[in-house]
Amino acid sequence: MQAGLFITVEGVEGVGKTTNIEYIKNWLQHQGIDYVVTREPGGTDLGESLRNLLLHGDDVSDKAELLMMFAARSQHIEKVIKPALAAGRWVLCDRFTDSTFAYQGGGRQLNPEWIRQLETLVQEELQPDVTFLLDCPVEIGRARAAARSASDRIESQDLVFFNRVRDAFLHRASLYDRFRVIDASQDLLQVQQQIESVLVELGAPS
Amino acid sequence: MQAGLFITVEGVEGVGKTTNIEYIKNWLQHQGIDYVVTREPGGTDLGESLRNLLLHGDDVSDKAELLMMFAARSQHIEKVIKPALAAGRWVLCDRFTDSTFAYQGGGRQLNPEWIRQLETLVQEELQPDVTFLLDCPVEIGRARAAARSASDRIESQDLVFFNRVRDAFLHRASLYDRFRVIDASQDLLQVQQQIESVLVELGAPS
Repeated sequence: MQAGLFITVEGVEGVGKTTNIEYIKNWLQHQGIDYVVTREPGGTDLGESLRNLLLHGDDVSDKAELLMMFAARSQHIEKVIKPALAAGRWVLCDRFTDSTFAYQGGGRQLNPEWIRQLETLVQEELQPDVTFLLDCPVEIGRARAAARSASDRIESQDLVFFNRVRDAFLHRASLYDRFRVIDASQDLLQVQQQIESVLVELGAPS
Repeated sequence: MQAGLFITVEGVEGVGKTTNIEYIKNWLQHQGIDYVVTREPGGTDLGESLRNLLLHGDDVSDKAELLMMFAARSQHIEKVIKPALAAGRWVLCDRFTDSTFAYQGGGRQLNPEWIRQLETLVQEELQPDVTFLLDCPVEIGRARAAARSASDRIESQDLVFFNRVRDAFLHRASLYDRFRVIDASQDLLQVQQQIESVLVELGAPS
């Protein structure tokens, strides 16, 4: 059996990740492709517990945060992602290691070499096949996110922080061919047409 | 102000760590030395939450366990150990990184190179000044531990596992001068006399 494809969706708060993951999910369903939808941090019971500690803990040191992210990721890879891919299912994941480089590396300015070491330790050869980066100016995303929900610990950081996060995402997109950068300040219809054209390319019968 | 000393106590279950930490604590108190007693995994609110996930989680992958141990350790170092040492206090810690090399490296046979990478990332230059390794044949420790408490996830591993853990501790003790190996199969009085002679040497006015 052919291994499934590993698709990740990245971007700062308010760019429309949730809406567009739903769109991708519906597309996969209509194509009759067997898939799982999951998210980071989280995606497993352990991961959800760690996510909860991260989002609502008062005083987590930067390094501890980084290590907890990768602990959740390790569990997620071993228990969810690898088994699904091996069974020929597609995996659609809301955030993955690019978010760690963007938030902990770009945002919190932790040494990216630490993140690379942890990435190698935890992922070995595993990388997404395709990464959708939903990108728009931080002010637009922030306004959308603020309209939607009460802020948690990460969301209460300032604009300078989120601009560093966005820049780190764009920098990674410039380095790796697997990225498809989508201008998320467009109308939703245009965003989804772009996403669909990538999906059609991926899902075309070989 | 002179920095405090960092003392760790290591050994497999049932060697008498708790009793002898109490003994060391009382000795420090009688000497008028300002100290904190702490433990791993744990030692902070975050660490206790992670410890709880580790001890009672059903299905934590080996790497996730390793990363959670070091997340707890990072928080512990930043919030407890370094501030205490900087303030001239002695730190008496029930388990530290030697336990990770022994349990995750020796016991679970994870790649020790991963542990070394995480040790460097989290501890940088920090190492204990003195490490008491309480050592006795695993059968003796197991019998004592079984008499004392219901088994948790880690304690329900088998004898082969604990012999690998013990061997890994002894191997580390052969590598680093900071170790003081105490024969814990002796009478408690003899054990404590040996511990005291090390403490007297450490605590002698300079």
